Amino acid sequence: MPLTLEKLCQELNLSYSGNGELVIRQVCGLNKLMPGGVVFINVASDLAEIPSSSEIGVVVPVGTKSSDHNLIYAADPLALHVEITRYLHPSSEISKTIHPTAVIGKNVVLGKNVTLDAHVVLYDNVKVGANSILHAGVVVMHQCTIGENCLIYPNVTIREDCWVGDRVIIHSGSVIGSDGYGYFQRNKEHHKIPQIGNVILEDDVEIGGCCAIDRSRFYSTILGQGTKLDNLVHIAHNVEVGAHSLLTAQVGIAGSTKAGHHLVMGGQSGIVDQVEVGNEVTILSRGLISKNTKDHTVVGGAPARPAKKWKHLQALFNRLDTLFARVKRLEKLVERDSASD
Amino acid sequence: MPLTLEKLCQELNLSYSGNGELVIRQVCGLNKLMPGGVVFINVASDLAEIPSSSEIGVVVPVGTKSSDHNLIYAADPLALHVEITRYLHPSSEISKTIHPTAVIGKNVVLGKNVTLDAHVVLYDNVKVGANSILHAGVVVMHQCTIGENCLIYPNVTIREDCWVGDRVIIHSGSVIGSDGYGYFQRNKEHHKIPQIGNVILEDDVEIGGCCAIDRSRFYSTILGQGTKLDNLVHIAHNVEVGAHSLLTAQVGIAGSTKAGHHLVMGGQSGIVDQVEVGNEVTILSRGLISKNTKDHTVVGGAPARPAKKWKHLQALFNRLDTLFARVKRLEKLVERDSASD
Amino acid sequence: MPLTLEKLCQELNLSYSGNGELVIRQVCGLNKLMPGGVVFINVASDLAEIPSSSEIGVVVPVGTKSSDHNLIYAADPLALHVEITRYLHPSSEISKTIHPTAVIGKNVVLGKNVTLDAHVVLYDNVKVGANSILHAGVVVMHQCTIGENCLIYPNVTIREDCWVGDRVIIHSGSVIGSDGYGYFQRNKEHHKIPQIGNVILEDDVEIGGCCAIDRSRFYSTILGQGTKLDNLVHIAHNVEVGAHSLLTAQVGIAGSTKAGHHLVMGGQSGIVDQVEVGNEVTILSRGLISKNTKDHTVVGGAPARPAKKWKHLQALFNRLDTLFARVKRLEKLVERDSASD
Repeated sequence: MPLTLEKLCQELNLSYSGNGELVIRQVCGLNKLMPGGVVFINVASDLAEIPSSSEIGVVVPVGTKSSDHNLIYAADPLALHVEITRYLHPSSEISKTIHPTAVIGKNVVLGKNVTLDAHVVLYDNVKVGANSILHAGVVVMHQCTIGENCLIYPNVTIREDCWVGDRVIIHSGSVIGSDGYGYFQRNKEHHKIPQIGNVILEDDVEIGGCCAIDRSRFYSTILGQGTKLDNLVHIAHNVEVGAHSLLTAQVGIAGSTKAGHHLVMGGQSGIVDQVEVGNEVTILSRGLISKNTKDHTVVGGAPARPAKKWKHLQALFNRLDTLFARVKRLEKLVERDSASD
Repeated sequence: MPLTLEKLCQELNLSYSGNGELVIRQVCGLNKLMPGGVVFINVASDLAEIPSSSEIGVVVPVGTKSSDHNLIYAADPLALHVEITRYLHPSSEISKTIHPTAVIGKNVVLGKNVTLDAHVVLYDNVKVGANSILHAGVVVMHQCTIGENCLIYPNVTIREDCWVGDRVIIHSGSVIGSDGYGYFQRNKEHHKIPQIGNVILEDDVEIGGCCAIDRSRFYSTILGQGTKLDNLVHIAHNVEVGAHSLLTAQVGIAGSTKAGHHLVMGGQSGIVDQVEVGNEVTILSRGLISKNTKDHTVVGGAPARPAKKWKHLQALFNRLDTLFARVKRLEKLVERDSASD
Repeated sequence: MPLTLEKLCQELNLSYSGNGELVIRQVCGLNKLMPGGVVFINVASDLAEIPSSSEIGVVVPVGTKSSDHNLIYAADPLALHVEITRYLHPSSEISKTIHPTAVIGKNVVLGKNVTLDAHVVLYDNVKVGANSILHAGVVVMHQCTIGENCLIYPNVTIREDCWVGDRVIIHSGSVIGSDGYGYFQRNKEHHKIPQIGNVILEDDVEIGGCCAIDRSRFYSTILGQGTKLDNLVHIAHNVEVGAHSLLTAQVGIAGSTKAGHHLVMGGQSGIVDQVEVGNEVTILSRGLISKNTKDHTVVGGAPARPAKKWKHLQALFNRLDTLFARVKRLEKLVERDSASD
């Protein structure tokens, strides 16, 4: 029996107006409405973008009025749309079991309902918390602790001694705890400095695909609670990033740099080694922080400057040809004047 | 019995002149001629680079004349050289079989002659087309469809629901269908937005090593037919790249950006989110497109400008020190004049 | 029985002064002293940073004097500290065995004490030298040769025909020998050029996490002896990098470029294709070498210029707003003068 708008709202305890018999099939986006789709808008005026009488359910702020649409009322339309998304599109079922091809070392401790899919390898002394899912091909080396409700996608590697909190998500191809890049040079050859520390991913961290997070030389490389990394991010040894930071794709943070909470790094940006970056600092795309940076700063450019200055300099740079022309003209005028003196 | 020039030309139905008894061992490049090697040249005058009477076969344009060289005639010398390369250097033999350590889920459909090498894992409801080769350690999650004649190298991950066309090649370490980077912020914490879409790789796409291609939020992230990605490329959710595009190493395209066909991105370049890029657009190395860009444009710099302007500005920038000096000189002259008024 | 300072010095044949009964537990860094820790200093004056009578062992240059500290004398304090690190923090024990889930092809030759951990796959004709350790999930394709005392971390892929020297370390997620990015265009479609060469990693090379090193078109992509790559590095086909080079995170070298020994590349820097870079060249972070570069050069910027010029231009760029203002003022002055002529 198909799911109707009325049924959906009963299930999730929502109020609605419009055609309760509308068959709901999926969530969708405003840019591509699909019959039976549920979209959301944040302001009532966006209703104008949706054809009236359409076969669409619209999650709207409480108080929105329209007799031409099927409205689902929400205090927080986006948050409710996410809830409806999870309801309509549950994850593919994972059998909560230990696959017979998984290899489990000595003294491994597994919580309740842990999933170890095909070919997972846990080295000795690993702990995995309840309800965590390790997909096929994941390798976790000695003495790691992985928290509860984690989701580790196929072919992730977690090196020895690392600590992963609860509800952490790690995408495929990433490595947690690779050696920090540490050498000392003697006779023009590089000798390896052992990297005996680890990586700590605090609760609710998410790591994108093909990221490399290096272990510390002595202590811990730390990504703070709720920090989210996009794909192909590099985090060097001894780095600490505060809670609730957003590191978008292809950014890098060099060795021993410490950043506060709510750091935001635009795409392909970076921070050099050994600097201190305050809280709530934002780096524009392609920016490169090269020195200590205060709280609440927004910076751009390489080396990074205050974003406002960076944008102003870029605008001037764009007119550099005119400046050369103006100087040339001045030279002619002044030279003529000098000649006529 | 060694392969002679005459035998090679018989096998591939080619015409030649010179020493048919020459033993052919390998293909090689003009920069490093090897005895028994076959090289190619695109214009007859390049023959001057090859010692006469050398033990080299030279693929030349039809009509090229030389009595001092062993010539193989071709309408398209490079294309024929590629054909000779495949003939002389076939891939290492792969046993077209299902390795006993491969793990195959429920309702998996395999075409004829599919190779699943050691430790491959196919989750439930996966389809793999005829003659496709999945190397050791490849993981393909639920409901994926992989076309015919694909070549998936070791340790690749393909996430659930993705669609891979025919003759697609994916290099090791890459992930297809990792979650898009989508969060909404409430109380200064980031909450995950489910990414329920997928990735579509159309026919003849090639994906380099350690690339991450994110699944769409609702619909599909799409790489068009014949598009080729180099290593370490990031493609964000909802991105669409048209057919026959070339994305070189370490480039990134941010969320929801749409680009036309024959996009060419130089090394380490990027495109920001939410922009529209026309057909046959070229971005120079390290360029960063930050706004909608018309068909047939060539751009450079970050933010990107027309390449001609970018190069002119770079040349001027390189003389910025002289401009400062010229302005200082003018100030002295003008100040003196003003003083003498 | 706990390890004392005296016992440690006996074991490693060191001389010391101070409290021989001090219990030694770990090495640590100057920025975070830990009770029972051993730190090092390079110059005697740094002793001032360490509280006197602290429960710390300090590795110091021979000749350093202090009656308030526990001193361990060394000709080379850092090198000795590394030795103490290895003594106090040995790697987790690996069983020197072939795991029963490892899959070994035909004609594979294994040296003494080779470790193949769970789910390792060796294709046909692979050779692995004595004492090398291949961690879980490593895949080595046909005809590869891996030297002695190598350490290959989980989920690394080494493609066919590659050659890895002795004491090479490769971190997780990396791929050695992916196809070079080579196509030829006909009728606006890209056709693959077979990449039949290989990759040579000379002795003592180290490759970071999630790196992609492409095989050559005809011959070999080569990383010279003792060269160290950080994470997420891209090396294109036919590239040659000389001995003892340092390529930090997220750098890329494009096709067929040759660089000498002791190349140093700062974070996120690059070198374009087809250029020759001399010995002992240094590229600052984010620099992009775009032409042939002589020995002993230090360059910065994109395109790269001599570092001194680059820094000077950056300083001038930072004052571009003042230059515009100065020109505007001059124009007013000159215009007034012209008007008053």
